[in-house]
Order: sequence, then structure tokens, then C-alpha cells
Amino acid sequence: MVKLTFMPQQHTAQYPPGTKISAAAEAAGFPLDLVCGGRGRCKKCTVLLQEEGRKPREVLACQEELHADALVQIPYRLLKQEAVILTGGTPGKVRLNPAAAKVFLPADRLKQHPADGDLERVKLALNSPRLKPPPLEVLRSLSARLRSPKGVTALLLQDRLTALEEGDTTGDFYGLAVDIGTTTVVAYLYDLHTGAQVSVASSLNRQTTVGADVMSRINEAMKEEGLVRLHRLVLETLEALLQEAAEKAGISPGQVYLAVLVGNSTMQHLFCGFPPYYLGRTPFTSTVLEQVLLPASKLPLSMNPAGHLIFLPLIGGFVGADTTGVLLAAKLGYSRKLRLVIDIGTNGEILLGSRERLLACSTAAGPALEGAGVAFGMRGTEGAIEDVAITPERVSYKTIGRTKAQGICGSGLVAALAGMLRAGLVKPNGRLLSREEFLTAGGSAKLAHHLEEVEESRVFRLTPAEEGGIYLSQGDIRAVQLAKGAISTGVALLLEELGVAGEDLAEVLLAGAFGNYIQVDKGQAMGLIPDFPGVPVRPIGNAAGAGAQKALLSRQGLKEAGRIAASVRHVELASHPRFQERFIASLGFPPGKRG
Amino acid sequence: MVKLTFMPQQHTAQYPPGTKISAAAEAAGFPLDLVCGGRGRCKKCTVLLQEEGRKPREVLACQEELHADALVQIPYRLLKQEAVILTGGTPGKVRLNPAAAKVFLPADRLKQHPADGDLERVKLALNSPRLKPPPLEVLRSLSARLRSPKGVTALLLQDRLTALEEGDTTGDFYGLAVDIGTTTVVAYLYDLHTGAQVSVASSLNRQTTVGADVMSRINEAMKEEGLVRLHRLVLETLEALLQEAAEKAGISPGQVYLAVLVGNSTMQHLFCGFPPYYLGRTPFTSTVLEQVLLPASKLPLSMNPAGHLIFLPLIGGFVGADTTGVLLAAKLGYSRKLRLVIDIGTNGEILLGSRERLLACSTAAGPALEGAGVAFGMRGTEGAIEDVAITPERVSYKTIGRTKAQGICGSGLVAALAGMLRAGLVKPNGRLLSREEFLTAGGSAKLAHHLEEVEESRVFRLTPAEEGGIYLSQGDIRAVQLAKGAISTGVALLLEELGVAGEDLAEVLLAGAFGNYIQVDKGQAMGLIPDFPGVPVRPIGNAAGAGAQKALLSRQGLKEAGRIAASVRHVELASHPRFQERFIASLGFPPGKRG
Repeated sequence: MVKLTFMPQQHTAQYPPGTKISAAAEAAGFPLDLVCGGRGRCKKCTVLLQEEGRKPREVLACQEELHADALVQIPYRLLKQEAVILTGGTPGKVRLNPAAAKVFLPADRLKQHPADGDLERVKLALNSPRLKPPPLEVLRSLSARLRSPKGVTALLLQDRLTALEEGDTTGDFYGLAVDIGTTTVVAYLYDLHTGAQVSVASSLNRQTTVGADVMSRINEAMKEEGLVRLHRLVLETLEALLQEAAEKAGISPGQVYLAVLVGNSTMQHLFCGFPPYYLGRTPFTSTVLEQVLLPASKLPLSMNPAGHLIFLPLIGGFVGADTTGVLLAAKLGYSRKLRLVIDIGTNGEILLGSRERLLACSTAAGPALEGAGVAFGMRGTEGAIEDVAITPERVSYKTIGRTKAQGICGSGLVAALAGMLRAGLVKPNGRLLSREEFLTAGGSAKLAHHLEEVEESRVFRLTPAEEGGIYLSQGDIRAVQLAKGAISTGVALLLEELGVAGEDLAEVLLAGAFGNYIQVDKGQAMGLIPDFPGVPVRPIGNAAGAGAQKALLSRQGLKEAGRIAASVRHVELASHPRFQERFIASLGFPPGKRG
Repeated sequence: MVKLTFMPQQHTAQYPPGTKISAAAEAAGFPLDLVCGGRGRCKKCTVLLQEEGRKPREVLACQEELHADALVQIPYRLLKQEAVILTGGTPGKVRLNPAAAKVFLPADRLKQHPADGDLERVKLALNSPRLKPPPLEVLRSLSARLRSPKGVTALLLQDRLTALEEGDTTGDFYGLAVDIGTTTVVAYLYDLHTGAQVSVASSLNRQTTVGADVMSRINEAMKEEGLVRLHRLVLETLEALLQEAAEKAGISPGQVYLAVLVGNSTMQHLFCGFPPYYLGRTPFTSTVLEQVLLPASKLPLSMNPAGHLIFLPLIGGFVGADTTGVLLAAKLGYSRKLRLVIDIGTNGEILLGSRERLLACSTAAGPALEGAGVAFGMRGTEGAIEDVAITPERVSYKTIGRTKAQGICGSGLVAALAGMLRAGLVKPNGRLLSREEFLTAGGSAKLAHHLEEVEESRVFRLTPAEEGGIYLSQGDIRAVQLAKGAISTGVALLLEELGVAGEDLAEVLLAGAFGNYIQVDKGQAMGLIPDFPGVPVRPIGNAAGAGAQKALLSRQGLKEAGRIAASVRHVELASHPRFQERFIASLGFPPGKRG
């Protein structure tokens, strides 16, 4: 048997002579990522082999057989680990290889690399000749830190050394993926050492106190103190989520070294402190589309000061990093299949294409489907009507948590509209019938009873007074109609731009939490979700958040985000010559199908 | 004729149809650097051509003929300019292409590059798709600055955007090359826009108040407050030189954006604020050998806060960036000729080799030749004896400025020793004869009269009492002997390490100010300068400073510095097994040749 010690793991075990290094590594629990399948072609599995009494030499782990006791140094990039992303949609798998990394260098290992310079010694010990030097402050303490008898842990960000910590701190290594929505912010905390998701925290974006939609935020940020305030509010939101997520996981926020953020273009500006002055007016120019790297030390956050935050790249106009996240998760850019992705939010983002060509647009759907601007509207929390069924005999409904109805959320609105259209209570042009009109048209007396007038406005009552007296008004229906019209217009114009028909699609994907809760058939019945013959519709969960997680867990994912974002053509709807015409044509609901 | 406008120069002129773009550019005063000689092979002269009414397209300037009015955008890297380096040695020419650059972007030019992102627009306007983003602070003001009606000037450091200045500030662009010696600091100020040297300033290193040699500085820096003090002192020295050089040139220090520094390893540590604790003890490890980049904003200097300082890479042990500078200027790494370079200072650095292999060592020559530790020693300023001639009849001397003798400087010491050896006043073992011994050995009575005893030590009087009564003592001769021994040992051991003989050398080069003032024949007569049969000796001036200037003026020079420094093998003399033996053997002076 020959004795093999793996570095930097300091793992020693015995193997039969002739064992290949890759097999020994796998047996030791350090499976290598053999890109060419171990055929010695890709040369990516180069490791440093030091046989006893011989000089170290570079060999291919998939080819070299062991014949003497030896030490093998594996570049940390070669270690294969997988992480599973959970966001409510289909879990995705990525190879764990975050842009930030921690590598422990035991004291005796450093001694094996004598060099005339201490930074050069670290490079040798890390087997990273191209490592970029750390900031001046880190360099100043480098020599002393390197001589700690406990060894040091190198913190790396891509190809840069960012810090050195005394002793083995590789276990203290967490990362946060954050989806900054206009209304809601969600933070996913991961153990970057193991790839496990350890907690999730979400809350309202504190900026909502300033305004419900992006235009109101932009208007506020036109004033310098408004920008300062909005920047502070979103950072306070993140800081609270960071603390909550850390507490749930039983760690300290200081153990978080990397955060990857997605959000629309306005959220990116306000988070980074960029004045959104030119984003708010035609031609809607952002300060920077590409990924923004923010040192944690420059922001009022309790994550590790040597850590970094990365805001994923924007696509253009109001199509932001959230859409980049969706693309990364939904993999439109990898498949030949033509697909459509709809992410319904205050701003709706629509993506269309395949790996040949990708288009994206943003539409101001308004906050109606998130419960704002609707008489009894509310977010999808306990007590919200989430489903409505309308028959000629009765109106029935379900609330979240099966508690007393407090209001109605987006999926309830969609279901109510679908039912009302089917029952002939609402005309395809969006007009709510009066009780008389409904009866004249042959409607049932029981349903007609739900049609009333409140404050000179026609309403359709969903629950009796003792159950909250919740209704939808003509105004509420118009708000939903505008959202539906905005989304439909975006879909129609993108199909037109690409020169394809809806029937050519392989699939329609619904991104976002809303896509998970909405009932597809009801969404199609009221026209919010496209209903192309033979084209399946599939919800994919919070794809923006999933994309952020992918970029957090994998440097390849992060790199892809940049490539993808740059490959998408942004179609500016507001200035599109056929926008007005299309929008008016898209406002109508589908004719109600009597079942 | 066709009308052609060059951008970013905004230069318009008429050319005959069929003129090649490269020829038009040359005629316009913007000669392009045609790497493949204009044969269309290297593709390096790609420019953006926008003919009237057509879309812009990339063409090769050396191939494309003009047939319509057009706009040509030349990447700034293509522009060929030359700068001449002046350091007292042979002037060297480099293509002006500093690591930092300024490019003016007129307002209307920026408008020609609509993009969804402002940073992306800058990249397009600069024709630099891989430009790295600026710091967060610069990004925050990017959009507003870009919309100045005066246009903006982009400040670049290598492939990174570092600042944006309002209007055209390309003329305000200066750089400083600095040689930080243990004793003397010299700063060369260049106009980076034209490549002209505009002023030079030099002064004592204020650290000399703490100690004369590097070991005394290192000992002081062992204490934390000592390091802080020495760091401050060298920065104060540089700040004073920066102000002096700027004043001489009639500019403000804020117009200086780039500084390239050389200095020995100890100077690098103290300048950067690295504790030299481990440099001061075996195995003499530096914090970092590679080039150190220091943002000007982190140092108490009045240069532009968006500017940077670059300390050239060290070689190893005490062989520092000054030697890297010498290598860069003397081009040892490019020639097949075997050459030896001796840079005599408090620490003497010796380089040996050719482009195949390069060795370097550092020897503690001591400060004697810089006038310290010698009874009447002084630096080479007015009143210093710089030459001595000794005949059997008389001792004559010359002082700098032909004024009354104040003391003796290095070149005077060398000349005196050479004369004393030749006259038989000093034995090859360094012993100064007594008057009686000299007369017994057949010495002239006139010279014997100069031999005296002062405070129980033998001395040789150079000037009568009324001319300062300057003499050399036995102790002074021993100090020079140690310097000579240290240099000779280094030379001998490097030759031995490389396995070559002195006769194999093509040339011996003397670097440093001292090399310019010393008389080669006298230096050889007393053994400080090697005297290999048929091998010429040539002074090359302040080669370390010339190297710093080359790296300041040319990014290629800067890159080469890194490559060269890494390619040199540092030979550690103190731990060399044959050091003691060689040192003792090298202490003797050459036997005096009677002329």
C-alpha cells in the first residue's frame, strides 16, 4: 500500500499501488470534477504531486498512478460539490463553487513553500499563480498573520485575495441571495461550505413607505435627500433580513461573506446609491447595466467587512437584474425551444426566445394584482380570498388559512374575474353589468342579487356583510384589466418583434410567487395568462430569487449572468410605434366561455 | 477628395479617394503603431469606420481605403508616441503609453453612442469593451458627469476606469518616477500627455535622521511607532519633492496622476507601511515581491486623489525594485551577451547574466563610499575632494566646485586609495605603512612626510592644515576595504554560481550616480571595479531611476518589470556556503602597479 496525503484537506489514507489519483481522491471523499471524463484530454485536473524524496511535479489526477508515498495538492477549484436551490419551483442543482472561497492553509503547509515574499508564498500554497493581491490594509498585516501557529484561512473573491483570517475559519462561510422586489424583499441564506440552504427571511421593502411603484420611488429620488433616504431604507430592509436569517440559522451576520442581489433597474439604482434621474425619463438610461461589485465595508451592513455584495447585471430600461435571475434559472438561453416567461409584479417582465435570440420587455402592470389600488385588495397573507367559484346558484370562496375573509389577493382577483366573465357578469370590454342588465341578459336571480351600487359605483359582492362584505368594484375590475392589458401587450409585441406566433411556443413559464398561486385555467379564462392552443403553461416559482441563488453558489452562474444579460435585446414598449394600438386591442377580456 | 474626421481628436481633413486610413492618420499627426508593419496580419490596427449614411463597422486601418466622407474612431492604445528618458546615462527611448491614460469624450461623441447604460456608453465611446468599472463613488456621479455640455475626460489605469473629469483635462496629466534610495531620493516629473521630462528634484531621504543604513531602519521599524515614523518620513520626503518638482514645472501637484517608484526592499516596506520584521532576519522574507499598487487617496500626498502609485516588484532578499529598475533600463534580460551590472550604494546590488539566465545579489557595502563612517567623509557636494593624484613628489587634489576642501566623497576615496596603493603607501592587505616603514621600503621623503599619527592611529594627510587638514586614517581605509570586499565577493560568487569566468563577460556596467563620478581606471586599480582582461566598463547613470521612468512612460515597461523581476534568481550571500571564504579572499586590494 502507498500512503497519500491530500492537501489542503490534510487527509491521509492508504491505497493499493497503481491507484489513480482521481480514484484515491474520490475514495477520500474529495471527488474531482473531471471535465473530459477522465480521458486526460482537458488537462483541467492538474494537481501537484510530491512523492517522497522527489521534487513536486504537476500531473493529471485522472492519469497518474500512485507508486510511492506522496502528498497531493488539489487546487480548490477542482473539488466537486453540489448545491440544491429551493425557491418554491423545481429545485435546481448547481456545482458548489461560489465566486468567494475560503481555503485553510495550515502552518506547516506554509512552511513547505519557502519564497522570498510572503504573498508569493500564499500563491504557491494556494497553487494560484495569478492570484491578485489584497488591499493595502491586508498586505500590511500579511506577514504577521502568516506566521500564526494556528495557520491562516485565505478569503478569495474570484481571482483576488481579499483577507486572511487566523486559524481554520472555513466553516464560518455563509452567503446570502437576495431578491429585492419593489414590494417584497426575500433573502436566502446558504452555508457556502456545504451548499445547504440554512434559512429564508422575507419582509416588505421599507421603501414602500415612500411609494408603491417604481415611478413614485424615482420621483422621490430626484431630490438628493430622497435618494439618501431610499438608499438607507432598502439597506435597513436588507440588514433586518440578514439578522433574521442569521438568527434562524444560529449564526452571526459577521459569518456572511458574499451576497448576490437581484432586483429591477430602479431597485439596483436605489440599492447602489445611483441617482435614477435618467432612468426615470426617456430613453430610460441606467447608470450601469453590468454587474456591480460593492465592498461590504462601504455599506451599513453587519455582514463580514471583508465580504462583498454583487448586484447582478441589468438588461435595459426597466428590465433589471431580476429578469437576469429569471433567465439564469429558466435557462432560456441554453435551449433551442422557443419559450415565453412572464414574471408578474408591479412591473411585469416578459421574456421571449431561445438560445438563438432573446427579447425582453417590462410593462407597468401596476400593483393591483399585489393587492394595492383595489378596494378590498391585500397581499397573499392569512385571511385573503385566494380563490372564488361562481355558479348560477352561488358565489363561494376560500381564504388563505381558511380564516375569516379580510380582503382579496391577486389569485382571488383572477379567479373572481374568470368566474364573473364566465357567468356573464362582466362583458369582455370590462363593463360590470347592473343587476337589471344581468337579469335582462338571462342571468340567474341569485347571482343578480350580488350586484349592487356602492357610492355610485357598481360592485359585485363576494361575501355577505357578516363575512366582511367584500366586493369588487367597477374600478377594481378596470385596475385588473389594465394589468392584463399591459401583460398581453408585452406578449403580443415580443411575439411580433421575433416574428413568431403564440402557437410556435414550446412552453409558457410563469415566474414569481404570483405564478405559483394563480390557477392557470382561471388566469387564461380572464386573459392574464396567454392561452395558445397546445402550449403548456408551467409555474417556475421565484425564478429571480433562484437565479440569485445560482449566481451565489456558482461562479459559473455569475459569469453566465453577465453573458446572458448582454445577449438579451431589450424592447422598449413605451416608445414602440405599435404600443398604443396594441395596448387598446389587448385591454379586452376573452369572451366568457359558458361551461 | 473625401473628408475624414478622426475621433477622439475631432480632427478633420481631406484626402484623395483611395487613401488608406493609416496613411491619413499619419498625415493628420496621429501615426498608428502598425505592429505587423501594415500587412494586415496582426489585426491590431482595428478602428471603427463610419461612412456617411452607413452603419459603423470595424476595419483594419492599414488595409481600408477611403472612398466616402467618414468618421474614424481610433482606440487610444493605437496612437504611437515616443518619450525620451534622461537620467545622466545614455538617453533611452520608449513609446509613450503609460499605464494611466486620459481620453477626452466630447459631449456630441457620447451622444453618438446610445446605450441602455451610461457605463456601457463610456465603454463604447472608448472602444474598450473590457474596461473594468470604476469605484462606487465614481459610479454614483457617472450619469450626471456624462451629461456635461463640456464633455468629460476619462481617467484610466490599465483596463480600469478610475475617474471622470468634467471637460477636456487631457493636458493636465503628469507622472512622477521616483528612486527612493536609502540616503537620497530623486523624483523625475514627466508630462504624460507629451512624454517630456519637465523637472527633476532630489533630496536626502528624511529617514536618514533615524539611521544611515537599512539595518538601522529595520531595527527602528520593529517598534510599531518606529514603522509609523519611518513611513511618515519617506512620505514627507516624497511630498516635498512632488511639490518642488511641480513648482519647477509650473504645475500643481494635483495634476500628477501616476507615480512609479523604485527602491530597495527595505524602502519598499517602509514606503508601503509593511512591517519589515521578517525582512530583517534570515531568511530575509519580504511581505510582497510583486508590484504594489497604492491608491493616492490612501496616502498623505497632494497628487490627484484619483491617481495611483506603483512600487515596482522586488527581486528577493535585499535585492529590491531599484535592481528591477536597473534591469529594465540596462536590458540584461533581452540580450544574449553576458553582462555584469554593479550598482554601488549603501547596499551594493550586483546583477549577472543574459536573457538565458539572470542572477542578482545584494551586499552590505556600507556607507563609506557615500561619505559616512569616514573621518572626513562627505557626500559629493561642493567642497568634497573628488579626485586625488599621488606622485613621489606631491599629493594633489580637486574639489567639487573648485572651492576649499571640506572633506572627501566616494570618488575621492577611490582615487586616493588607488594612488596610495600605487605609491606603496598601503599594502595590498590594507595596512597603511608608518613613515619609517615607507622610507625603509624606498618611499620618497616628500610622500613620507604625509604619513602621521593622529590620536594613536596612522593617517595619510591629503591637504595641509591651512587647506582643511584632511586625511585618511587606517580606519577609513578599512571601511573602503570592506566595501570593496563586499562588492568583489558578490561578483565572484555570482560568476561562480553561473559557472562563468570574468573574461567571458561582454561588458561591465556601472549603475548609480557613483558609477558616473568614479574614474574607472582608479576604481580598477584599488579593486572596487572588476578588471577582467579585455572586458570594457561602462557607466550607465542612474539606471534604477531610468527603469522607474521607463515603467512610468510605458505600460509595456511596467509589464516587463514584473516579468523580469520574477525571472531573476536571487542569490542570498549571507547564507551562501562559500561566502566567508570568498569574503576574506576578496578583502585584499590589488597589488599596486608602479607606473
